[in-house]
Amino acid sequence: MYKVTVIVKRRSTILDPQGKAVEQGAKLLGYENISGTRIGKYIEFDVDMENETDAEEEVKQFCDKLLANPNIEDFEFTMEKV
Amino acid sequence: MYKVTVIVKRRSTILDPQGKAVEQGAKLLGYENISGTRIGKYIEFDVDMENETDAEEEVKQFCDKLLANPNIEDFEFTMEKV
Repeated sequence: MYKVTVIVKRRSTILDPQGKAVEQGAKLLGYENISGTRIGKYIEFDVDMENETDAEEEVKQFCDKLLANPNIEDFEFTMEKV
Repeated sequence: MYKVTVIVKRRSTILDPQGKAVEQGAKLLGYENISGTRIGKYIEFDVDMENETDAEEEVKQFCDKLLANPNIEDFEFTMEKV
């Protein structure tokens, strides 16, 4: 079994309205030094497979088809055998 | 200036309906080996301060007041001087 951690980020050329909103909130609360806020997703799950290559392929497909929007997001993942 | 990366996760005792939904989608698509899916947030931003302790304090407050819900989420962050 593998413990998988995926990070999904918007591409840097794509506007991030959620990040902008949080940043404006920060400024209103008086945190003036914060900039360039971008919000992505952090996903954890287990893959119950023994072969590493097969597991990697399953994770890639899961990310491609469900976790990330291929039009505007990129993903990266790490796998740890447990 | 510091580049900051924050990960916000729901506490493990708190149900994660978004993760459950994605996992059901995975099962419907035929990925049967995936379990324990939990979805959190991954946030990047810059803090324009020179003193590390001050910057850390600013980041902690930003996380506490805007990024994480203290009732159900925990956060961790890393800072890198640039």
